[in-house]
Amino acid sequence: MKVHNFNAGPSVLPNEVLYKASKALIDFEGSGMSILEIGHRTSPFIAVMEEARSLVKELMQLEDDFEILYLQGGATMQFLQVPMNLLENGDTAAYVDTGVWSNKAIKEAKSFGFVDVIASSKESNYNHIPKQFNIPPQAKYLHITTNNTIYGTQWQMTPVTDVPLVADMSSDILSRSMDFNKFSLIYAGVQKNMGAAGATMVAVRKSMLGKITRKIPTIMDYKLHIENGSMLNTPPVFAVYISMLTLRWLKEQGGITAIEKINDKKAAMLYDEIDHNPLFRGTVAKEDRSKMNVCFIMDKPEMEEEFLKFCAKEDIVGIKGHRSVGGFRASLYNALPLESVEVMVEAMKYFSLKKA
Amino acid sequence: MKVHNFNAGPSVLPNEVLYKASKALIDFEGSGMSILEIGHRTSPFIAVMEEARSLVKELMQLEDDFEILYLQGGATMQFLQVPMNLLENGDTAAYVDTGVWSNKAIKEAKSFGFVDVIASSKESNYNHIPKQFNIPPQAKYLHITTNNTIYGTQWQMTPVTDVPLVADMSSDILSRSMDFNKFSLIYAGVQKNMGAAGATMVAVRKSMLGKITRKIPTIMDYKLHIENGSMLNTPPVFAVYISMLTLRWLKEQGGITAIEKINDKKAAMLYDEIDHNPLFRGTVAKEDRSKMNVCFIMDKPEMEEEFLKFCAKEDIVGIKGHRSVGGFRASLYNALPLESVEVMVEAMKYFSLKKA
Repeated sequence: MKVHNFNAGPSVLPNEVLYKASKALIDFEGSGMSILEIGHRTSPFIAVMEEARSLVKELMQLEDDFEILYLQGGATMQFLQVPMNLLENGDTAAYVDTGVWSNKAIKEAKSFGFVDVIASSKESNYNHIPKQFNIPPQAKYLHITTNNTIYGTQWQMTPVTDVPLVADMSSDILSRSMDFNKFSLIYAGVQKNMGAAGATMVAVRKSMLGKITRKIPTIMDYKLHIENGSMLNTPPVFAVYISMLTLRWLKEQGGITAIEKINDKKAAMLYDEIDHNPLFRGTVAKEDRSKMNVCFIMDKPEMEEEFLKFCAKEDIVGIKGHRSVGGFRASLYNALPLESVEVMVEAMKYFSLKKA
Repeated sequence: MKVHNFNAGPSVLPNEVLYKASKALIDFEGSGMSILEIGHRTSPFIAVMEEARSLVKELMQLEDDFEILYLQGGATMQFLQVPMNLLENGDTAAYVDTGVWSNKAIKEAKSFGFVDVIASSKESNYNHIPKQFNIPPQAKYLHITTNNTIYGTQWQMTPVTDVPLVADMSSDILSRSMDFNKFSLIYAGVQKNMGAAGATMVAVRKSMLGKITRKIPTIMDYKLHIENGSMLNTPPVFAVYISMLTLRWLKEQGGITAIEKINDKKAAMLYDEIDHNPLFRGTVAKEDRSKMNVCFIMDKPEMEEEFLKFCAKEDIVGIKGHRSVGGFRASLYNALPLESVEVMVEAMKYFSLKKA
């Protein structure tokens, strides 16, 4: 029996991925070894790594200039690694502040150059995406966080600019169609739409690299990771394997355009209930609502605990909101079945009727 | 059917660990979720993390001053992180060069202070551990690589000094009794004796930290990781879980003293055959032989390919030597059964008789 898993990440994965991985843990492709026991420089694992890297490129339809890396340390490591590789001392980087994760990225970048925070929605507790901002033309890059897991906001358009775009897409990568080629560097912890915790995907244009004079430590240097086929040192073998299986699954579903239709449907169903159910209301500007993380509260906060308990009985898990917003957050990542959203909506309806 | 897995790492794991993990991939402790799908800040996972951290402390009998961290990036990240946290610009750190991995550590440290390479066995292709060296008393620490996977050498004694000791124990941690409290910082990629690829264990004395003026990036700061219970950001959940299971297994075997007896027996059996079989010979100084990685060659190198093929037929895998040494390397980590070494020795005997 599986629960309805609305966790914000790590989060639900496709059953096919879990069953295949469970078998590979005992015997990987008839090798007499577990996937955990094979050498990372053997051809079976190199094939896994290369398939994962090429599936990212294929699913995102990335141009040849892009290289795909599987690194470690999560997006938090990228907050540091991006400016270390792209920003010269004295250079300017532009950042848009859309929440906790943007802020962490901004904080680390300040050690490597001048950080121009060109817009922020902090004053309204990040309940919307800033629309008005000027991008300094001399900026080496503009950094955005495409989806804000904690607040449930999402960029609906890619900023139009000649400045190279860098994006943290940890919580909405591979969930919707967009022209990823408008970006110069995209990173994402893989534990939401791309697999399980333990690896970070970086898609970077080779033409962005090698332009600064700073001495970059070996393990932090994108160029060295590229030269080594994303195996500069022992990669997180299992996390890459799970990511490869998750990407295969997405391809079998029909890729991003197919999953986007389901994601649109899931989000529409839940927001529709929030907007029509008298007990609930959404917390963010409608035009900036995230299709991945749906944040909502109750008009009577004293009912929230009871609703949580009610949901738990229906095997609905992971919907408690982040402490900085309160209420509820339902994460609707690619692998969450439509059926789980139906169960959630039914629970809201039923709870509301009971209270009427 | 399992093969005899002599891989240098990632490498063999206990069957119990693999079976338990395989089940947890489908359903973790009756939660209706895979271990990959649970939130890392939920109590079931916090319990996993805390059990792993406390088992390391218990098995190594570490004093209270030590904190245990599970980080990402492998030993290669620690080559950078150690000097970044411990070495002031202008300070001296002493390193002993015993091979490729020591060298990588030395290279990264040079960005943070003065590195005094007080001894090296490079001239003899790292076939022994240097015995004569002077440790500069002003050194902030002395760094050693306790076991050299590529060459098959191992420190048999801990240097006696008042200078704090830092050790890369990636390939022999938890394999033999030693007074780990003589060290101030110990790190190890967990993929040999402590689990599968994807996590790095760091045991550090709190009293060593916070002494430098350098601004340390958030994700690189040991102190911040300690303050956050080794969950500064999303940890590599599954890699920590596998490590916890592996540590539990080791404890059930009787801990380090018990596994050491088996490790001694395995190494003695294999070295004995190498020393007595006319076709083979060891490559390193006898007094520095590693009990984890046994390196040997054939007097007639033209036979090596044939012997490799012969072993493959006997389901012996992972014994091809590193390109910088050639010949063979059999890794005898904790989880390798004695029986696998018996099969290996029989293969050597049989091959030798055939050729006589």
